[in-house]
Amino acid sequence: MKRILVKNIPNFIEKEIKIEGWLYRVRRLKSITFLLIRDRSGLVQCVIENNNIDLSSLKLESVVSIVGIVKKSNNSLNPFEILVESFEIISEAHELPIELNKKELNVNLDTILNNRAISIRHEKVNSIFKIQNIIVQSFREFLINKGFTEIFTPKIVAEGAEGGTEVFKVEYFEKTAYLAQSPQFYKQMMVGAGFERVFEVAHVYRAEQHNTSRHLNEYISMDLEIGFINDEFDIMNLEEDLIKFILKAIEVKGKEYLKILNVNIPKIDVSIPKIELNEAIEILKKVYGKGDLEGDLDPEGEKLICKYAKEKYGCDFIFLTNYPKRKRPMYTMPFEEQGTRSFDLLFKGVEITTGGQRINDYNMLIKSIENKGLNPKDYESYTDIFRYGMPKHGGLAIGLERITTQLLNLENVSEASLIPRDRTRITP
Amino acid sequence: MKRILVKNIPNFIEKEIKIEGWLYRVRRLKSITFLLIRDRSGLVQCVIENNNIDLSSLKLESVVSIVGIVKKSNNSLNPFEILVESFEIISEAHELPIELNKKELNVNLDTILNNRAISIRHEKVNSIFKIQNIIVQSFREFLINKGFTEIFTPKIVAEGAEGGTEVFKVEYFEKTAYLAQSPQFYKQMMVGAGFERVFEVAHVYRAEQHNTSRHLNEYISMDLEIGFINDEFDIMNLEEDLIKFILKAIEVKGKEYLKILNVNIPKIDVSIPKIELNEAIEILKKVYGKGDLEGDLDPEGEKLICKYAKEKYGCDFIFLTNYPKRKRPMYTMPFEEQGTRSFDLLFKGVEITTGGQRINDYNMLIKSIENKGLNPKDYESYTDIFRYGMPKHGGLAIGLERITTQLLNLENVSEASLIPRDRTRITP
Repeated sequence: MKRILVKNIPNFIEKEIKIEGWLYRVRRLKSITFLLIRDRSGLVQCVIENNNIDLSSLKLESVVSIVGIVKKSNNSLNPFEILVESFEIISEAHELPIELNKKELNVNLDTILNNRAISIRHEKVNSIFKIQNIIVQSFREFLINKGFTEIFTPKIVAEGAEGGTEVFKVEYFEKTAYLAQSPQFYKQMMVGAGFERVFEVAHVYRAEQHNTSRHLNEYISMDLEIGFINDEFDIMNLEEDLIKFILKAIEVKGKEYLKILNVNIPKIDVSIPKIELNEAIEILKKVYGKGDLEGDLDPEGEKLICKYAKEKYGCDFIFLTNYPKRKRPMYTMPFEEQGTRSFDLLFKGVEITTGGQRINDYNMLIKSIENKGLNPKDYESYTDIFRYGMPKHGGLAIGLERITTQLLNLENVSEASLIPRDRTRITP
Repeated sequence: MKRILVKNIPNFIEKEIKIEGWLYRVRRLKSITFLLIRDRSGLVQCVIENNNIDLSSLKLESVVSIVGIVKKSNNSLNPFEILVESFEIISEAHELPIELNKKELNVNLDTILNNRAISIRHEKVNSIFKIQNIIVQSFREFLINKGFTEIFTPKIVAEGAEGGTEVFKVEYFEKTAYLAQSPQFYKQMMVGAGFERVFEVAHVYRAEQHNTSRHLNEYISMDLEIGFINDEFDIMNLEEDLIKFILKAIEVKGKEYLKILNVNIPKIDVSIPKIELNEAIEILKKVYGKGDLEGDLDPEGEKLICKYAKEKYGCDFIFLTNYPKRKRPMYTMPFEEQGTRSFDLLFKGVEITTGGQRINDYNMLIKSIENKGLNPKDYESYTDIFRYGMPKHGGLAIGLERITTQLLNLENVSEASLIPRDRTRITP
């Protein structure tokens, strides 16, 4: 007999069906017992006569298989139920470390993460990843429709450092290699290799020593790179359209999950405001009396400038542009003496994107590497590509867990990672 | 002025347009010069009067920007050309290490891989990855339509070894970690976490010492795992439908690339034949006089059994089933005394998939780990999930570079990797 999903039960009234799933709740009355069964599509109530089957040892979250007749019920919450004819335990559960059949999962983050395969069964956890799936699928869909090619680039690399962030070492046979902190060099390479427009959704690695609620040491980066642009504004405009497309997709396809999570998706009615970093620092000083910033924002500054954007422009997003050269990696296209054609996108107080135009001229790039105190020799396999015709180009990266966290108002970015890796966690 | 793609030029006859791309070929006549310009969508011929512009220093593969008028021409190969009005070099190329404007790239594999950003500009190389893109997109599309959830699982893991293959070590702060050789444990975990059906397209790592034309040390694995199955035949049937879907997608969307690569996509008119491994070994002995096999096939055996399937069933694919327990990992569901509910899928002489039903019973799994001479303590964060209700399940993995290689009749799997990592190669 073929298994029927819970959501399809309404098509089988008065018919005999088989359902399979996890035992969510048991309510024993004198002569009958109600069983709530959960599969990936929903919950259904099953009614069983106590004489028929011995349920005394039944454990919650066991996997069960039930054959029975579908009945319409008068209960508006459970408009259908199943009169059980036969009942089989496929996999018996032990005592659970977490109570799953409550509306809220009232346990701390460590317990949730230590028991990941169980906590994800809770609809409030599960829904996070259903929304995350919509983000990823719509990111890809948007770009494929615009002529982008998906790429897969190596995560084991010879040159670890674009400069800045710490990297993880890998023993690669006789050699020492590193885990890629971004696909930056390779996505530029693939623009120059003639694909022109490329994206990658893949793991990146940051050996950052600090454990914060905003950082993971392994996370999913949604990267794109595009050739034949005019300047960084082309990239920002592309991102604005992309973000709007993703938000729309979530609203349409993610309704049920948004309801479970009690979240409203922000509307972007206006164009996302763009402010130069220096202007933002001035605003923070004038409006909020925050005078300790120079060349970059700190977490408090990011929160305040988003507050400002929300109040002044009614927008949860804000682009900060023209970051100073000394704060940006060597591949960043300069602007005037001290600035760059780069930007951050902030969303509800947190940076979710860094992007900008890149240097496409070989000599300028070599100079920029030297100016950072780095040795061009170490970057030859990267800089070589600029010797054979490289269009003006730029790109950006969106942290998947970060944008999920901000969209769903989660407290810690680890909540938006199926199996997070942080400063101390390498299991499960 | 907005850039127009070459493929859209027919919409602009007698109009002034701007095109941008790489300089593919130059043909100088006495009074005029023909320039062939390539962008991601195709090639177009531009005509320029020698008096107007000094082209003496022009280098092939430079990135150029051209404004001109679109003219219909009488040349059937180039039905449109552009009368150049202005011409600008955006990025000048040096002398090329590879000749790109010939029909074939007549250089060896190392040269191709050492100059990846250039070799990919050749249409015969580029097309490989366009087809690979169709494989990946249609893999996802097929599964999403069947209710699968995409997952991203960690590649930095505590327990390296599922048993068998060598793993790469990573320095993870104070700890030693490993690069995941597959998402096996995590995809099973996510089936049990209630998603029921999951897939992942991501990097996996094998520290294999040997350098062969069929192995990469870092490759893309297209993994899926599905709960509530009956047995391994459900998985094989799913894969058969999946493969047919992918082949169809390539035929429909990949026409131009197949033509460039001069490749015909195999038809699967029949059901893919399924033969038990032991029977296959018997056939190889009887039909081909190959008597040195026991418990598994070697590369020659794989080639011969595919030859057999092609001749007897007219099929380029064959499933081999019921591999012996001692040849399969500890999570494999046993069958009778010595066998397993596992399979390989072979395609044109090479294994492209390993799959099967997994053990879903906690006690059986612990026993199986012990029988392999492994310590269950080392696998606790994995085996734990089997204590809280685990449906019958199974899955498979398809090596993306392998299936691409076999489909396109490439000689070496490295050709199907944008930036391959093999025994010695960690650049570019």
